[in-house]
Parts: sequence; structure tokens; C-alpha cells
Amino acid sequence: MISLRAPNSSSSRGFLVVGCMIAMLSGSLAQAPRRTDVRHRARDLGIVVGKYPTGQWNAITDVPGVLVGQTTIIRGSGPLHIGAGPIRTGVTAVFARKDIWSNGVFAATYALNGDGEMTGTHWIRDLETLNYPIMLTSTGSVGSVMDAVTEYTTAKHPEHRWDYLPVVAETYDGTLNDILGRHVRYPAVAAALDSAHDGPVEEGNVGGGTGMICFRFKCGIGTSSRQLPPNEGGYKVGVLVQANFGDRDQLTIDGVPVGRDLTDQLPVASNGLPLANDGKEGSIIVVIATDAPVSSVQLERIARRAGLGLARTGSTSGNSSGDLFLAFSTANVIPLRGSEKELKIRFLTTDHVEPLFRATVEATEEAILNALTMGKTMEGVNGRVAYQLPYDRLATIMAKYGRPLTIAAH
Amino acid sequence: MISLRAPNSSSSRGFLVVGCMIAMLSGSLAQAPRRTDVRHRARDLGIVVGKYPTGQWNAITDVPGVLVGQTTIIRGSGPLHIGAGPIRTGVTAVFARKDIWSNGVFAATYALNGDGEMTGTHWIRDLETLNYPIMLTSTGSVGSVMDAVTEYTTAKHPEHRWDYLPVVAETYDGTLNDILGRHVRYPAVAAALDSAHDGPVEEGNVGGGTGMICFRFKCGIGTSSRQLPPNEGGYKVGVLVQANFGDRDQLTIDGVPVGRDLTDQLPVASNGLPLANDGKEGSIIVVIATDAPVSSVQLERIARRAGLGLARTGSTSGNSSGDLFLAFSTANVIPLRGSEKELKIRFLTTDHVEPLFRATVEATEEAILNALTMGKTMEGVNGRVAYQLPYDRLATIMAKYGRPLTIAAH
Amino acid sequence: MISLRAPNSSSSRGFLVVGCMIAMLSGSLAQAPRRTDVRHRARDLGIVVGKYPTGQWNAITDVPGVLVGQTTIIRGSGPLHIGAGPIRTGVTAVFARKDIWSNGVFAATYALNGDGEMTGTHWIRDLETLNYPIMLTSTGSVGSVMDAVTEYTTAKHPEHRWDYLPVVAETYDGTLNDILGRHVRYPAVAAALDSAHDGPVEEGNVGGGTGMICFRFKCGIGTSSRQLPPNEGGYKVGVLVQANFGDRDQLTIDGVPVGRDLTDQLPVASNGLPLANDGKEGSIIVVIATDAPVSSVQLERIARRAGLGLARTGSTSGNSSGDLFLAFSTANVIPLRGSEKELKIRFLTTDHVEPLFRATVEATEEAILNALTMGKTMEGVNGRVAYQLPYDRLATIMAKYGRPLTIAAH
Amino acid sequence: MISLRAPNSSSSRGFLVVGCMIAMLSGSLAQAPRRTDVRHRARDLGIVVGKYPTGQWNAITDVPGVLVGQTTIIRGSGPLHIGAGPIRTGVTAVFARKDIWSNGVFAATYALNGDGEMTGTHWIRDLETLNYPIMLTSTGSVGSVMDAVTEYTTAKHPEHRWDYLPVVAETYDGTLNDILGRHVRYPAVAAALDSAHDGPVEEGNVGGGTGMICFRFKCGIGTSSRQLPPNEGGYKVGVLVQANFGDRDQLTIDGVPVGRDLTDQLPVASNGLPLANDGKEGSIIVVIATDAPVSSVQLERIARRAGLGLARTGSTSGNSSGDLFLAFSTANVIPLRGSEKELKIRFLTTDHVEPLFRATVEATEEAILNALTMGKTMEGVNGRVAYQLPYDRLATIMAKYGRPLTIAAH
Repeated sequence: MISLRAPNSSSSRGFLVVGCMIAMLSGSLAQAPRRTDVRHRARDLGIVVGKYPTGQWNAITDVPGVLVGQTTIIRGSGPLHIGAGPIRTGVTAVFARKDIWSNGVFAATYALNGDGEMTGTHWIRDLETLNYPIMLTSTGSVGSVMDAVTEYTTAKHPEHRWDYLPVVAETYDGTLNDILGRHVRYPAVAAALDSAHDGPVEEGNVGGGTGMICFRFKCGIGTSSRQLPPNEGGYKVGVLVQANFGDRDQLTIDGVPVGRDLTDQLPVASNGLPLANDGKEGSIIVVIATDAPVSSVQLERIARRAGLGLARTGSTSGNSSGDLFLAFSTANVIPLRGSEKELKIRFLTTDHVEPLFRATVEATEEAILNALTMGKTMEGVNGRVAYQLPYDRLATIMAKYGRPLTIAAH
Repeated sequence: MISLRAPNSSSSRGFLVVGCMIAMLSGSLAQAPRRTDVRHRARDLGIVVGKYPTGQWNAITDVPGVLVGQTTIIRGSGPLHIGAGPIRTGVTAVFARKDIWSNGVFAATYALNGDGEMTGTHWIRDLETLNYPIMLTSTGSVGSVMDAVTEYTTAKHPEHRWDYLPVVAETYDGTLNDILGRHVRYPAVAAALDSAHDGPVEEGNVGGGTGMICFRFKCGIGTSSRQLPPNEGGYKVGVLVQANFGDRDQLTIDGVPVGRDLTDQLPVASNGLPLANDGKEGSIIVVIATDAPVSSVQLERIARRAGLGLARTGSTSGNSSGDLFLAFSTANVIPLRGSEKELKIRFLTTDHVEPLFRATVEATEEAILNALTMGKTMEGVNGRVAYQLPYDRLATIMAKYGRPLTIAAH
Repeated sequence: MISLRAPNSSSSRGFLVVGCMIAMLSGSLAQAPRRTDVRHRARDLGIVVGKYPTGQWNAITDVPGVLVGQTTIIRGSGPLHIGAGPIRTGVTAVFARKDIWSNGVFAATYALNGDGEMTGTHWIRDLETLNYPIMLTSTGSVGSVMDAVTEYTTAKHPEHRWDYLPVVAETYDGTLNDILGRHVRYPAVAAALDSAHDGPVEEGNVGGGTGMICFRFKCGIGTSSRQLPPNEGGYKVGVLVQANFGDRDQLTIDGVPVGRDLTDQLPVASNGLPLANDGKEGSIIVVIATDAPVSSVQLERIARRAGLGLARTGSTSGNSSGDLFLAFSTANVIPLRGSEKELKIRFLTTDHVEPLFRATVEATEEAILNALTMGKTMEGVNGRVAYQLPYDRLATIMAKYGRPLTIAAH
Repeated sequence: MISLRAPNSSSSRGFLVVGCMIAMLSGSLAQAPRRTDVRHRARDLGIVVGKYPTGQWNAITDVPGVLVGQTTIIRGSGPLHIGAGPIRTGVTAVFARKDIWSNGVFAATYALNGDGEMTGTHWIRDLETLNYPIMLTSTGSVGSVMDAVTEYTTAKHPEHRWDYLPVVAETYDGTLNDILGRHVRYPAVAAALDSAHDGPVEEGNVGGGTGMICFRFKCGIGTSSRQLPPNEGGYKVGVLVQANFGDRDQLTIDGVPVGRDLTDQLPVASNGLPLANDGKEGSIIVVIATDAPVSSVQLERIARRAGLGLARTGSTSGNSSGDLFLAFSTANVIPLRGSEKELKIRFLTTDHVEPLFRATVEATEEAILNALTMGKTMEGVNGRVAYQLPYDRLATIMAKYGRPLTIAAH
């Protein structure tokens, strides 16, 4: 049984408690980062991609009304025993609106590559509307999270009318996590849903991103936002990713081929030898929010652009990737039980769509970089360790290519 | 002998312009219908499909603002000489609005089977808007009609801003027509565009449908409409088809397997022997209009339903079919050169969409039946003849299955 | 906890135990069918749709290698208490191959209308291959069935390599079942998987179809097949449906508008008054199997044709429908852990695809009719009753339209 | 009337005659490049993107059997008179096989953004096969090129059976060309088709790319290829683009933000003042060839990756872009008139697809760079001038970002 702690509880066992955290940690990390390790977001390191400014929090929550709740489950260490752990997983909930159960928003999805799951997409396509919080979790736990969301909806939102088609997406955390133990269940799901909040969003080894790996560095959840200037509509675009993709040699940061030079510090087995890339670290879920009054088709076009932001980080969207994107707009409200025959909808004319595309590309790129720069070294199943991106090495490489970091190499 | 003359026009040059009709007719038909043959629409024969009433004209033009213009080209007889004829072809233009060049409407397309051409669909998908009249013509003439529409737009609608992406769809009239002669050119296209009108729509061997064949009977253009009752929104749905599909044994009329009994009167060569089905008579273009305030996604869903109407006539959408559908709504106007950043759009809530689906299925079925019952026996290239559906035989079969016609068998 | 009974247990309470059945039945039916009621398949009633002959069993299992296993859960009666019942649900498993866990088959999916769930479709699109049994169940139980399939795969097929993306589809059984109780869990899922067999397939109130309703008559699982003649390839096409759609007035059987005349016997509440149609009975899952050597694109085209078969029964694919189709071919084997760089694939040339389309339309229509004619009157939650299609009334109507049944009206 | 010159004629007026060239040039360029200007491909400048080596020609023709033919039409200067010129346009033909008229290849298309035309895509989707040469031309000439291809096919390839559905794609050359004059007609089309050849491919201001502009520099046709190593299959991937997109500030070359520093040399009017970006320069057609034995679905996945290569050059796929991609494989031959019921097809197992994705991204990026670096300053309608990318300025910027060119700045 998972031991649930209150959001504000402090962990005595060494892992920072973020948002709503479920943590029972035992064992030690082979090459654990020092507790004093501070991780930074890409922009704080001096990496500024794109031309548009960010919103207040540089987070998906900069789009008014959007909430994020996360549950992190870290428990046990040592050899994998399916069902018993070690556990390095979690779940992230993104609400387009707090009352999404009764008021929907326009939405659309896009699959750049399909080796992944995002449930609920058939109806989003035809209804054009999202009526559920978006759940990001571990591949093995999609079923249990769907089941939990249905239970939660039944219990807490009986007014919800649509036919129990939750939206749950996943990436594969089996390198570090007891993925087949399917550990994300009702308590974790309810905690993520109940703790959803606006303001800053936790990044790195949290929520659904707890056990994720990018470009073979530790990765996880990342977020970013863009604020369009008034003459381009003044809208906001926010992105949140659960990132788990990339070969090392592809790693590109702000155009710099970092992965070509930074070839070591691959994930290792307990014996310290590098793990072979089994091709399963290959997915990314991208959630895009905007307050621009765009239609579901315009949102589908926006979702397609997430792939262009992904490309800027070096991805070629591998065969085994589940590169699945979901975009929504908070500008129009679609009541689920409305009696109106017609609604008056705000609709952005096509000439004004383009800045949203660019903002999406920029925010996606930066959200991925944040997921990477905020990731912290983690030991997982069978003593495997995935390392964090080393800032000093990064700084040296970035400087070589004319882009010095504000945190100098040392 | 078919008399294809305009009510009052006289031709001194061999090209008879009828409404907008270009006709030079010579030769005789092997088994021509008597001149006094009057063709009827399905409903006038007593075939009433579906539950909703029709609009005033039982035509796509029942949707206010929709216009149809057609040019029919019938010239020559005897052996085929590519480029010289005989010609049995034409073009049909459907306007969502007379000022479509400057004010667009929401639209969507759907390909049930892709062995056909409908140009302009990539942009309709992403813009959600139709900015051109929809042109229906012969397969061989798609290029020349596109070229002509571009010329016409340049000359007459220089205000048109979008990048010259006309919408031209086709079905194959090569059984009866010199299809590779590519005879539908600027004069025919301009005449169809200039003559577009509201009110009753010509059906059968006219416009793009001139040389078409369905279920191996002479066929062509057909149209129908539905009027939803006030409590289902009160909207109108109109359908126009260019129909050219079907094996005889599939022919189903109001659920009656007519084609199983009516196995003769297949198209014949000049020697009177039945033509083999070369598999190229296999396509249908369906244009669906509505004044319901539906989005482009809702229109795409409506377009999908055209296939269900098609199925009711017995089609299984053959491998060589170009079963391509386009739906548009006149409820919202999208100015092409508007300066507004946002528009207020009328949007139908999802609970009210369903009657439109049913109306589309019904009107599609009836439009196809009209194309068939209004088709008249025609002699084409190499003396081939395609016969019209014989009412007397039809009446006998319908009566056998409990659905007597109002025009009795005799 | 669910009480599991052995497959061969006999029920003492009047419901036939089919395949693997889980049944605890109590209470009585308001208007229960007599125990001696025998239900018949459509063809046995004299309803023969289409031109092709059926396979040996007139079932999806006529495609060699295809297996079907079903678990039916019927327990309790009286008022609904979410989580406690009454339960009228189950799960149906379709195997393309018994060793699907290690050898995949080409597959494709198509969504005619999206108000439903079918998981696993993103990867089927891109991989072109199906690697899981197809699970059909209740809407509320999709998550628990996914979870159970993952558990089952982990336990019994550790050789399975792909990333735990089970294929689970659903329709809504909430009119009769405690749908939010989410009662289909590991024991039921494992029983369905373990009991999968070839030969005859149980139909009507069984498996995932236990609580389903069509055209407001009791419905459920149905199956049918077609055998192409040697000169059209000699291939087999089998279809299995979980059918839960349709307004009464749409019901069409072999072209006869049965629903127009047969307007009574709607589902009733415990007080005997007709239940309003809440619009949620609107879905159908169609699984199409063939041994023709078709590609995934050809299978997607085949899947589209399921909609045409659906249309023949009167459906207009309602707004709230999850009309989701999956087609697979057993002709090629795609090993999941093969070391071969290239496979030699059998590929049907396009001229030979068409008979498969027609066979799919025919078998889909007949499978739906079987689901309907095999359904038996059932009492569900809150004493609601859904009635079976009455043969005597049906016979009268069919005779009126020139299609007498072999089981005469009496 | 266009004056046609023989392919081997030499121009006395300063423009290189490439392949089949139609050129009557008069007038002078405001800031014409010196005759001695030599343009280089990106790789020859020292810009090496990606990890894979190129094929022999670094061109789409490195895929055995692929041919390219181009007709360039440059005539007149001075004020625009629609229909009279000045003309700066052409057409490029890509053959997957010389005998494509009778032997098809697997193919697929993908629309990243739809403001453009590529005809023939409905049937490519369902047939999975390409049966036509791919024609790239000016937006205004799509209709005339379709018409010409139909005429050419009729005259020269009467064995061609499919229903006259040519594949013609376009980008907008109206900044420099009399686009509405629709000048690409039969002679130009036939010349491109007749002159198709293997080996090196002309780039820059040639064929369909004659009047194109990228990132507001002169651009046009570009090509590149990749050769996979034996352990990744040893396959070839070739790409050809007609590139016409991009705002200046987006221009990114090998990760370097060139466009941020190189802000001048925008296209100018005859008065030397910069032309406003009218948003119509926004499209790219990408043709991808491979000899890997991939299915049409795998080709569609490959086509999607072209967008990732596009993203690397800085594009965010603007609203007005027609970013349309077509991929084909030469590995399997699909006879159009074969009598075989089944073919044996080579099919690449999914684990071996990934290198093709990466090769596609790399070759697309490099093909775009070649289109740009090979473009030459051109004067077009109304004395407008689009400038070529200046190598010296480029070298300075690349050096600043740690990527010195082999052609030094001077």
C-alpha cells in the first residue's frame, strides 16, 4: 500500500516533497546528487530560445485558469520485484479549467508518432471539446489511472455527463521504475487532482515525469510559456511536457550540438556500466494551453507545431516514440449541460494565428529544456542510475558555440 | 433523338447555349427514348425516403444563398476521335454564396474512397473555410477547369486574396464522352459560373453529370433537401451529387433490391451487346449545404454521413471510386479581407447536431435517386448507349416489395 | 468481490451460461421471457442479406486462427447502488492469433464517430500491426480492463515487447448495468482470455454485449462471416460487433423499415413506463477479420466499409455514438522479436480488394442483425427492462414488404 | 507565346541554361549578380548538417532510378502585365521510375500546413501507390500543368490505366513572376518530362523553383541525400524541395541564428525600398525518395519527418504555408496492369525504420540550405529584386557561432 502524505508534509528521507507528494524512500543512491544540489531552469542558466517573452511563471499556468497538480511516488531501492518496486513514478494532472467537469474547452490532439497512449482522443476529435483533466503518467499505469479518474468523477463530479472517456497519456519509465507494478492508483490520482494549483509548476523528477529520461540524461516534467505582444493579439501560450526521448548524440540546445561533445554520463547499471539504449525511452507528451480564441482545428494546427519545437532539441521522432500532443484554448466555455441551442464563440481570424504557432514552437522547445535542466540524478530499479545534465560541462560547450551561459562553467 | 435546346436560344454555330448550355448534337441514338419521354424525380414517382420533409425545391438551393450553374456540352456522334469527340460532358458550379470570392464559409471535406480528385482540400482542412465555387466536371477536365477558374477569378474577382486554390472535383465520363479530349474549358466554366441561380436545379444529363452512369443506368446530377422541424433547430440541409457509381446488382431504392430483378438494359456497344463494366464507373461527388451554424469539424462529421446515404442505395464504395464529399455551412460569414482580429461565430451545441446527420443521410440518398430517375437514355462515343431507368419495370418491382409507386406500372 | 463460476457451471436461475460465465442472478424480471424462449440468428429466421455465402460458423472465427472468449457478469437485481450492482456487463476478447503476444498481424482502425473509446489506436496506425487481443467491454470498465490486460500480459506473456498499449473498446451499458461500479476486473478479463476458442461464437446478452441495447431492443454481441468465391480470391471475412445503438424508428432489416411499424416494446422503467432515450445508447464496436493478404491501408479502407453495413440497418451514426472499427488480416505474420531486417509480405493487388469491401458490408449488417435477433429480454438496474425483438411482430412486417420469414408470424 | 529553345541551346543573356530551359530574357537587373558569380551548395561552403554521409550526387537522384527534369521560363522585364509577363517560373518533374506510367511505387503524402495544392493525394492515400511523375510548379499554373500532364499521358503513355489523376504541387512565385499569367503549359511540361535524367540535379533558380524566395532571400530548388551505413540497412534517402518560405528572423543554418544578424538585403521594389512581406511566401514542397522497402504507412511517417528537417531551418510552418510532403519508395514495383492477384512485397521491420527518419530530417534540412545557397539574385515583375544569400556575411556569422565556413568571409 502506498503511504499518502499530506501536501505540506516534509520528508525526512531526503527527497524534496513537491506539490502533492507520496514518498517512502529507502536505500541510497549509488551516485546521488548532493542534497544541496540546486537545479535551474534553462532560462536561469542563460539559455533563451525564441523571440517572445515568457509569462509570469514561464509555465503553462500563465494561461489564466490552468491548474497543475502532481503526485510523485518514490519508494524502495534495489532489485526489481514487479509489484513491489522500487517505485519511481507518479502522475501529473493538467486542468484547462477547475470546473472542467461541467464546462469544457475547445481542444485537439495530434500524434507525431504513435507508439504511445493518449486516451479520449476519438471524442476530442469529434466533440472538439475537452471535458477532463489531462493525466500524464507511466505507461503501465494508464489503465489504473483511467479507472481512478472514472471513480473520482463518479464520486466528486456526478454532474459530469459525457461518457466516462478520461484523457490519460503516458511515457515509459521502466528504466528506473517498476513500471509493470502499475503503482499509480486512486490515492495518487485523487491527490494530484485535489492539489492542482496555479502559479509555479514543479519540474524535473515529479509527477508523471518522475522516472523519465531525455537524451539519456535524467528528465521529467518541464513547462514554459510565451506572452504575445499586443499587436500580435496579446495572447498567452503555455506548454507542459512529460519528456522521455532522445539519443544522446541528438541533443541540441539553442542550436548547439551539445550531445556531440557530451557523450559520457549515460545511464548506468549498478555495476557502473552504461545501459544499452533499449529504444523504449522515446516519447514525449506535450500539452499546449492558450487563451487565444482558437477553434479546435486551429488547435490541431497548434498541436502539430509542438513537433517543430521538439525538432529544435534534436529529436527526429523515433520509431518507438509516442509523441502525442494535446492543445486546448480557454477562451470559450462549452457547458456540458447547457440548454442553449447555439453558442456565440470567439473565433480568431486566420491572419492572427501565426504568432501562436511560433509561440508554441518556442515554448515547447523551452519546456523540454526545462524538463532536462531541472532533472536530478536518480537511482532506480536494480540500482540503475540516470544522471542529471551537468551544468559545468554544458557551459563549456555552449560557450564554444558562441552562447555563454550566465552560470559560468566551473 | 434528344432535343437539347434552350427554351429560347437559337444556335447558328453549332454550340447551343442553353441556360448555360453548349450543345451541338448530331447523329441518332440507337435506342433513343421517345421525345415525349418525361423524366421524374424520385419523390414524384412515389419514392419517399426518410422522415424529414424537403425544402421548397427539394434542392441544394433550398439553403438560402446557395446557387447552382451548369454547362452541358453535347456534340457529335459516332467513333471516338480524342480531341474531336463525340462530347458528352459539362461542368456544374455550386456557390455557397454569390460573393464567395470575398466572403468565405466554413467547410470540410471527406474522402470515403480516394480514386478521384477534389482539389483545394488541403487548405479547406486547415483554413476551415471555402473561398471558391465548387466545380464538378469530367475527370479529364480537372486541369482545364482549374486553369479556367484561376483565369476567371483573376479577371472578375481580383479582390480574391487566397492563393489560387480552386475547388474542382470529378467523376469519370469516359464511357460516353471523349474524356481525354478535355473539353471543359474557359467558355464552359465561365458560362456555368455566370449562370448560377437559386430555385430549381436541373438534374440528370446536365452539367458535370452529362455523361455519368449509376448502377449501369444513365445518371448524372441529382439534388434534394431536408427541412428540420423547429424543435430540431429548423435548419435546412441540401445535397447535390454528381453520381457515377454502382454495379447493377447493388441497386437499392428505398430498401428494395431493385437491381436483383432489373438485370437487363445494361449499357451497350453500338452492336447492341452489353459493355463490360470496366470498373471506372465508380465515383460520386457529394456537396452538402446547410444553414445550421456548424463548425468545420461538425461539417466534416456531416460529410462522413454522406457515405451512409450512399450505402442506402446499395453502394459498397468500390475500390475504383472517388467518393469525395464536401460540406459547408452558410450560417457564418468569414470575410477574406476582414481586418477583425476576432469574429463572433454561431456554434451549434453538440446535442443539436444529430438531426443534421440524419437529414444529410436522407438527402444524399434522395439526391442519388433523383440523379438516377432523372437520367435520360444517351448515346455517346462509338455508338455506345446507356439507358435510363425504366419506370414501368421499377414500379413492378417496388410494388412487389410493398412500396407501390404513384406512377403505376403499365 | 465477483463470484467466478467455472465455464461449465449451469445456472439455476434461467439464464443460459455461455462460454465463460460469471453469474449470480437474483430477482425476477418484470416481463421475463419464458424459459423456453429460443432465440435465433437472423439467417435462421429467413433474413438473408447480401450475395456472398457465409463461412462454416457464420462467425468471425471462420477466419482461421481467430478466437473469441467471453465473460458474462450478471448479478443482483433491484435498485442501483454504484459499486454494488445490479451488474449486467462483461468482456469479449477477440484474438487475431492465439500467439498474438509474440506474432502480430496487420491492422487498422477507423472512427466513424468518436464518442467512445478504443485504446491502442495511435500505435496501430503507425506500426500497422496489432499485438494484443481486442477487448470489448463496458464504458466504465475500460481502465480496469486495460489494467487487467497489462497484468495478464506481464504474468503470462513476458515475451511481449511492445510498450503495454492494450486494445480496449467499449459501449455504454448504463441503462441496465451498474456501469460506474466498474465491475470488469482481472478475474473476468483473465477468464475471457483463457477461454478464447474457435468455432461457434455466443451472441446476444454475453461478454461485453451483456447489457447492450440496439434500436431500443435488447441487443449485445453479434457475428457473421462471408466466404468469397474462388474467382474473387476465395478469402474469408468475419465480423464481430458489440452493438448498442439506434433509435427505434431507424430500425431497418434487409431494407424493410421495421422500426416504423414496431413502435412499442421500448425499454421500460420498473413502473412499466417507457424510458426516455438519453442518447447514450449510441455506439457500436466492429471488429473485422480477414485472411486476405491486405495491407494496413487496405484494412483501414475495409474498416471504413463497416459504416456502410451499419447504415443498412438504419443507423445515421448519432452524435453520441462511439462507432469505432478495427480490421485485421491474418495473412501475414509480423514477429514482435524477429531479427529479420525485411519480411516478405503478401500484398493483394488493388483490383482484388473490392469483394472484401462488399463482404465487409454484408457481414457487418448481418452481425448487427444477429446481435439483435439473439438478444433476450433483460431486467437491469432499478428494475428497468429492455425487451427482445419479437419474432412474431417482425414476421408480420417482413411479410408485408415482400420478405416473409421462414419462421412464420404466429 | 512562349519561345521554346532546345535543351542544349546556350543563352546569350547571362542566365545559365539548365536541363530544358525556356528563356527569353530582356531588361537588366537592378543589382544583378556579376556573371562570374559562382554559387555553391551548403556542403561546399563547409556547412555539414547531420551525421550520415551523402550519396554520390548529394541529390534525390542518388536513389537508383529516380529522375529529375526541369524547365525554366524566364522572359521579359519591367512592369507586370498579367498574361504578358515578366515571367519567372517553370516546372520540375520528379520520376520515381522512368516507367512510372506502367509501374507504380509505394507512396504517401503529408500536409504539415495546408495553404497549398498537391493534387492526386486522395488516391495516393488509398491506393498506396504513385503512378505519375511529381510536378512542382507555380501556384497559378497547377491547372495548366495538370491539363498538360493529362495530354502528355494520353499521347505518350496510353497504357496508363489510372483515372487521370496527375500529381501537381505548387508554391507561390507571384513576387517575381506573372503568376496569374499561368505560363507553364504543355511545351514546358513536356520538356521537363522528356528531359528527366539521373545524376546531378540543377538547383536554385530553376524549374518550379525559378521564382521562389526563402527567408526573404532568393531561393528555389534544392536537393540532398543520405546513405545509411550497412548496419543500419544501407539504404539511400534523397530529398528534393521547392522552397519558398520563411521570415528573415527565423533563418537558422546548422543551429546558428543567421537571420537575427543578417537583417538587410530584403527583397526590394524597383525604388530600392524593401517589399513588405505579404505572407504569401510561405510554402515548401518536399519530395522524399528512398530505396528502403517501406510501406506506404512507413512512407507517411517518413513524410512527417520532413517537417522536423524544416523546423531545423527555423520555420514554424506559417499560417499561409502550403507545407506539403510526398515520400515514395522504389524498392517494390506495383505493375498497373498486372494480372497477379497477390504480390510479394519487401517490408522493412519496424526496428529498422528509425535511421530513415533521421536521414530524412537531415536531407530535408540540407536540401533547403542548398535551395538557399544556390539561389541567385533575380529581378522580377515591376523591377522587384530578391537577393541571394551573401556568402561573406554568412561566413562572419557562422564563425561567430563556432562554425567557420570553408569559404572564408572576405
